[in-house]
Amino acid sequence: MTAEDNRGIVLASRPTGRPTPGNFRLETVVCPSPAEGQVLLKILYLSLDPYMRGRMSAAKSYAAPVEIGQVMEGGTVAEVLESRHPGFKPGDIVLSHSGWQSHAVANGAQLRKLDPAVAPVTTALGVLGMPGFTAYAGLLTIGQPKPGETVVVAAASGPVGSAVGQIARIKGARAVGIAGGERKCAFIRETFGFDAVIDHSAPDFAAQLAAACPGGIDVYFENVGGKVWDAVFPLLNTFARIPVCGLVAQYNSEGDFEGPDRLPVVMRQVLSKSLTIRGFIQREFVAQRPAFEQEMPRWIAEGALKYKEDIVEGLANAPEAFIGLLEGKNFGKLIIKI
Amino acid sequence: MTAEDNRGIVLASRPTGRPTPGNFRLETVVCPSPAEGQVLLKILYLSLDPYMRGRMSAAKSYAAPVEIGQVMEGGTVAEVLESRHPGFKPGDIVLSHSGWQSHAVANGAQLRKLDPAVAPVTTALGVLGMPGFTAYAGLLTIGQPKPGETVVVAAASGPVGSAVGQIARIKGARAVGIAGGERKCAFIRETFGFDAVIDHSAPDFAAQLAAACPGGIDVYFENVGGKVWDAVFPLLNTFARIPVCGLVAQYNSEGDFEGPDRLPVVMRQVLSKSLTIRGFIQREFVAQRPAFEQEMPRWIAEGALKYKEDIVEGLANAPEAFIGLLEGKNFGKLIIKI
Repeated sequence: MTAEDNRGIVLASRPTGRPTPGNFRLETVVCPSPAEGQVLLKILYLSLDPYMRGRMSAAKSYAAPVEIGQVMEGGTVAEVLESRHPGFKPGDIVLSHSGWQSHAVANGAQLRKLDPAVAPVTTALGVLGMPGFTAYAGLLTIGQPKPGETVVVAAASGPVGSAVGQIARIKGARAVGIAGGERKCAFIRETFGFDAVIDHSAPDFAAQLAAACPGGIDVYFENVGGKVWDAVFPLLNTFARIPVCGLVAQYNSEGDFEGPDRLPVVMRQVLSKSLTIRGFIQREFVAQRPAFEQEMPRWIAEGALKYKEDIVEGLANAPEAFIGLLEGKNFGKLIIKI
Repeated sequence: MTAEDNRGIVLASRPTGRPTPGNFRLETVVCPSPAEGQVLLKILYLSLDPYMRGRMSAAKSYAAPVEIGQVMEGGTVAEVLESRHPGFKPGDIVLSHSGWQSHAVANGAQLRKLDPAVAPVTTALGVLGMPGFTAYAGLLTIGQPKPGETVVVAAASGPVGSAVGQIARIKGARAVGIAGGERKCAFIRETFGFDAVIDHSAPDFAAQLAAACPGGIDVYFENVGGKVWDAVFPLLNTFARIPVCGLVAQYNSEGDFEGPDRLPVVMRQVLSKSLTIRGFIQREFVAQRPAFEQEMPRWIAEGALKYKEDIVEGLANAPEAFIGLLEGKNFGKLIIKI
């Protein structure tokens, strides 16, 4: 490979509302040679996740935005082609954060070696990676489900939602999932083993959700916002916990939101029901990481925790796949095979 | 006293929005003779608190509403006139929950004897009672102020707000208070010793608050809602905690609130700043009660914690005083001397 062979997808312009293919551009990007302590990587898999929508905007957030003309960021699984770091040799498979491109140079200190014999390497981007840890840490640290309680999660066929429901069940709680379309709902019920699943496209969605939660909702793991929130909200029990890890339904919205103003009603319920609403990002829970790395693989090995991947071939298809992700078109953890 | 001598203020009708004097009626109410295990009480002081607005409404809450024609409920300090309980004798001063009336019968098991030698008995309704415990438990359990952090509280001349700011300072945090009018603000600054005080009636209130919180806000103790929330919200730091114990500014509102809808913006910040919003009512923190009963009197004795009472004479004046309380007209813990 020469330094010019690297292809990458850069942010061409910032989206207003829903991203379009024109916000991205596939181009040849320069890949430097590895310096001392670095390795040259061939990217095998790229993770696509909803948080990336935030990086496309200039708005202040917990992370800096991607600059115009920069390669889009993202978690990746890669093969070491060339190593100037004593910990890695060509052929090693590693977890890196190399973004939407075919090759990259990375500091060895920032890589984690993956053992394909322990688990398929793609799981490092999903159930055993950031989405799985988001589910694990948010549910157990903030949600704290107790036996017999009801846990509700949307995007339940996705990597976060599917893990939330299954971990809730492992902890003895009831899991109620929400997803779009009968195909996803059947999978969540049959493979992920949720106690109930509701299709949010049903006209009587809110009534179905209420019927599936006869004892109310004790934990609502919020990863979508929008109309799911409106259906969940009246069902929350006293002392309900609401970990907030995402709001996909509103990521594409800009400017003022139409009234009525729901905030006073929400705050009144926060008060009268002693609710806890807590936003988080998984990396603040580093203390839970060792327990996660011990428990999750064991649950998978025991068959208590299942996962589903949605693998799309080709870097050039990443923009379209990402746009679909924001609309719930993926079915399982969305990964690009480069 | 005969059974007919008892005067009480009953709920005459449920208010729509702001309560009016017509929602209350002073009348003679029957007071039974004490049965075995009970005592007959002469009420000395009645506590008026914002939560009572909630009891006037039929809406579902953590407590049942007062029925039409029933005596308004409330905390009271009373003298035992007659006792059929071995733990009490005539002349004892007790804390009871006897409501807006001149006499009452109560079960001895539900009374707490007060020692006038330890502290003025009215403090059992304020700084050493429910409002003081609301401040103590909410701030320390949910707010968790750390040295150098900034704690903001509104209604800072009131019994909850004044204790919140002073306890924050005892814990090494900066206390920024919000109140209405120069007289209250001066008192909060000079007597309660807050680091900064902002008058919410100032036209540049939000800008003044921002200037008083150059390092942002780490804890916002929410007891009012309304425009204070709007000024506080943009100043919240990552990992800020928001204990919610009251929303006086919206207690009188009914029906839909005008747009724009602020909820999506709030949820976005909850997510991107890892905020914690947690409603509570003091009685859920029984575990903190012994520490409160040990620490608060000591802080008062040491001069680290000051309090102010606003005592109004005469049961008949209770409705007007209560209506004023909801508008911030009181100056300190509002108590009716019967």
